[in-house]
Amino acid sequence: MTAHDPSSHSLQLTSSGQLKHFLTLDGLERALLTDILDTADSFIEVGERTIKKVPLLRGKTVVNLFFESSTRTRSTFELAAKRLSADVLNLDISTSATSKGESLSDTLLNLEAMASDMFVVRHSQSGAPHFIAESVTPGVAIINAGDGRHAHPTQAMLDMLTIRQHKGGFEGLKVAIVGDILHSRVARSQIRALNALGAEEVRVIAPGTLLPRDVESLGCTVEYDMIRGMRDLDVVIMLRLQKERMEGALLPSEREFYRLYGLSQDKLALARPDCLVMHPGPINRGVEIESAVADGPQSVILNQVTNGIAVRMAVMSMAMSGQVSERTQAVGEQG
Amino acid sequence: MTAHDPSSHSLQLTSSGQLKHFLTLDGLERALLTDILDTADSFIEVGERTIKKVPLLRGKTVVNLFFESSTRTRSTFELAAKRLSADVLNLDISTSATSKGESLSDTLLNLEAMASDMFVVRHSQSGAPHFIAESVTPGVAIINAGDGRHAHPTQAMLDMLTIRQHKGGFEGLKVAIVGDILHSRVARSQIRALNALGAEEVRVIAPGTLLPRDVESLGCTVEYDMIRGMRDLDVVIMLRLQKERMEGALLPSEREFYRLYGLSQDKLALARPDCLVMHPGPINRGVEIESAVADGPQSVILNQVTNGIAVRMAVMSMAMSGQVSERTQAVGEQG
Amino acid sequence: MTAHDPSSHSLQLTSSGQLKHFLTLDGLERALLTDILDTADSFIEVGERTIKKVPLLRGKTVVNLFFESSTRTRSTFELAAKRLSADVLNLDISTSATSKGESLSDTLLNLEAMASDMFVVRHSQSGAPHFIAESVTPGVAIINAGDGRHAHPTQAMLDMLTIRQHKGGFEGLKVAIVGDILHSRVARSQIRALNALGAEEVRVIAPGTLLPRDVESLGCTVEYDMIRGMRDLDVVIMLRLQKERMEGALLPSEREFYRLYGLSQDKLALARPDCLVMHPGPINRGVEIESAVADGPQSVILNQVTNGIAVRMAVMSMAMSGQVSERTQAVGEQG
Repeated sequence: MTAHDPSSHSLQLTSSGQLKHFLTLDGLERALLTDILDTADSFIEVGERTIKKVPLLRGKTVVNLFFESSTRTRSTFELAAKRLSADVLNLDISTSATSKGESLSDTLLNLEAMASDMFVVRHSQSGAPHFIAESVTPGVAIINAGDGRHAHPTQAMLDMLTIRQHKGGFEGLKVAIVGDILHSRVARSQIRALNALGAEEVRVIAPGTLLPRDVESLGCTVEYDMIRGMRDLDVVIMLRLQKERMEGALLPSEREFYRLYGLSQDKLALARPDCLVMHPGPINRGVEIESAVADGPQSVILNQVTNGIAVRMAVMSMAMSGQVSERTQAVGEQG
Repeated sequence: MTAHDPSSHSLQLTSSGQLKHFLTLDGLERALLTDILDTADSFIEVGERTIKKVPLLRGKTVVNLFFESSTRTRSTFELAAKRLSADVLNLDISTSATSKGESLSDTLLNLEAMASDMFVVRHSQSGAPHFIAESVTPGVAIINAGDGRHAHPTQAMLDMLTIRQHKGGFEGLKVAIVGDILHSRVARSQIRALNALGAEEVRVIAPGTLLPRDVESLGCTVEYDMIRGMRDLDVVIMLRLQKERMEGALLPSEREFYRLYGLSQDKLALARPDCLVMHPGPINRGVEIESAVADGPQSVILNQVTNGIAVRMAVMSMAMSGQVSERTQAVGEQG
Repeated sequence: MTAHDPSSHSLQLTSSGQLKHFLTLDGLERALLTDILDTADSFIEVGERTIKKVPLLRGKTVVNLFFESSTRTRSTFELAAKRLSADVLNLDISTSATSKGESLSDTLLNLEAMASDMFVVRHSQSGAPHFIAESVTPGVAIINAGDGRHAHPTQAMLDMLTIRQHKGGFEGLKVAIVGDILHSRVARSQIRALNALGAEEVRVIAPGTLLPRDVESLGCTVEYDMIRGMRDLDVVIMLRLQKERMEGALLPSEREFYRLYGLSQDKLALARPDCLVMHPGPINRGVEIESAVADGPQSVILNQVTNGIAVRMAVMSMAMSGQVSERTQAVGEQG
């Protein structure tokens, strides 16, 4: 899936350019990304930690279809759907639905036929949400909640919302992403979003063993040394060390990794004084990040969590709205 | 439980003949079955795959009480209850509630006392929902979601709704049920419903080893040979081969079964040209049914799924309504 | 935590004396306990088994945070929250959220940031809900659903509601608590509540091996012999024998325990003729209580269950209300 893959473009957008699925940030223009951020902002109570309850999905059924368990991600989508007033059905497919030997395709057809309006899909294989979006009945929206190493686009958008809230915009910003780029679901989405929204520089900081081979083509600069990499940064996004995904990789020890790439107060002092500190959670304190930094004044880690609900509400309501207007148009053309 | 068992009749109907529990199709007259189908139809958006959201159970609490896990059945009842605006509590009793050694009877008394208005009961033992309906506090409705080999009455009614939608009615129809009649929860319910609604002929097609001993008394004709059995059919209902229920039975191999009783395009061609193809799902492709038939123009398998939500909404709302009117009457007689 | 611990007092009450968390009955005055009972009563339909649905928590998110599984307790809080019109998220932390090695403190910060308004906490360690209430963001209410041997304050309050409904009040009442006082989460809470509400005598009846060392300081009389202990009782509260918590204790056999401390019809006849019989459930029939007593005319065991929903609704709505008025006041003082 490249940046301007026309099939992906037409898959997740209506003919008039509205979102109808939310699968990847590839092919989404700056104007649409800004729409998502504006919509998300509208759900946050001004000056509060709370999120509004709105009726945008009242009467709609959202199915959380998790082929891979993730309580944390599932909970944020469940809360987002409920704050949109939807009915929610949680299905942990890893343990249940295919237990009678039904194929994925038949499971999906059945769930659609149960009058579902939206599937939030989490899958360990790259491209699974695309595959589902290609085959789903018109009118049903697919939201990608993380697939393989490929994309985790709502995570990237909640990061963008957090940056915009604190920096006012993206122009002139130097942003670094630090750590396990190779196994991260989210790094590619972040790089794409930052470029599309106009950041001045996107920098990845990692050892060569944790970088993908095609890193040069992703639209970022590469820095192997974190001391040099922290210079002039406005935002530093730490990635989680996914120990369970790194078996057999030629890795430094945890202690060595922390010494070289962990975000300590010393290293943070090398960036600009108002440099934001971000992390997708859950935090490995003392492995990727020093506790004093995670809990310090530059950290916006908990804002990211709240923004995660708002961004998920935004893409869910916008995709549903796109589905409805496409169907209305289709009916109009038939009539 | 025979067709005109008066105790069952009085158990699930109010003195004025309204539904108050939904346990079995035994003893339900054609007029009431037609009411269920009409009510279910009213919940389906005309020309759409979608189901309306209505406030008929607003403020009521529905408990899904599954003594036997069935994600699929539980999901359809959960969705139906939510589209009726009920609050839903899922209890998987097989793993939890009786873990402290409490008796079934005490568990039920406790759940009733939690201000529950309806129990949707799934149990591996025939008659369990009847037992519960006999002992439950007046005002609480019991819905049978499948008990042992006995009955799965909402499944039978969604099949009837699907037939009526496509054929306009039941007069003159020849309908066959094919496969494992012996272990099927639903075949007896289907035979009863088809007879009550006025089908011309109900035919079962199966090897002798998969037929109950009392098959002659069920109100159907029997055909051991599928080639002969397909003649003149308006509807063919395939049953699922429940491998897990057939241990030790004298069965042909899967391949042999498919050759003799699987629904292939060749065999379907022997029926009337507009013969409907039905299956309760999940499908064993290539075991009971050929993929080209399951996905073909005569298949209404996915309509069955959507109709399942509508039929469950119908029996839930009608039973609740019957409970309320019986209580109102009881209060009136006391006053 | 002693009866008049000022820190506990200020922790769960606002400066104007409103409830803002519900952690323990320690330090709660009679007037506030009476408010809780009055509020709970207002949710019960007069002359009915049913509980009203009210919009007091509409738009709020309640997280059931169970570090220790308890389907029964979780279900009652889930039902209570839904009857208050809240959105509910169930998290079984024992199996899921900390699986990626996140600390309790970080898990909580993340859940708060997900715009949660209330945590219902169940934990095996005494004091865990207090710890959480001390660290939680202002505006988020903590409800104790049972912690270690320490307290289970909603259980004690539903018992008080049941007594008041049947006896009209507490003045002059002699109440006994029988059984495993040592391992009971609820006995201490019951003793405190009965004293605060003005019962004439609170008596514990148990063998010495099932009594805590500090029993004398709890505000009750002690009786080792049940025959003597039953005299003049208005209410007898049986505790559940928690076999799983008593390994290694010097205990009589079950049969011996029942002979000495089980509530039989014979022993009940020694109390006042209108003596109420109470039990928190689930019942061990024939271990702590004879079936004829549990199901007899003096038993109010099922009323306790219904009252459990109403009492939980009361403390949840009152705590939320206290949080809101404290925040409003804080904003007013800033302005």
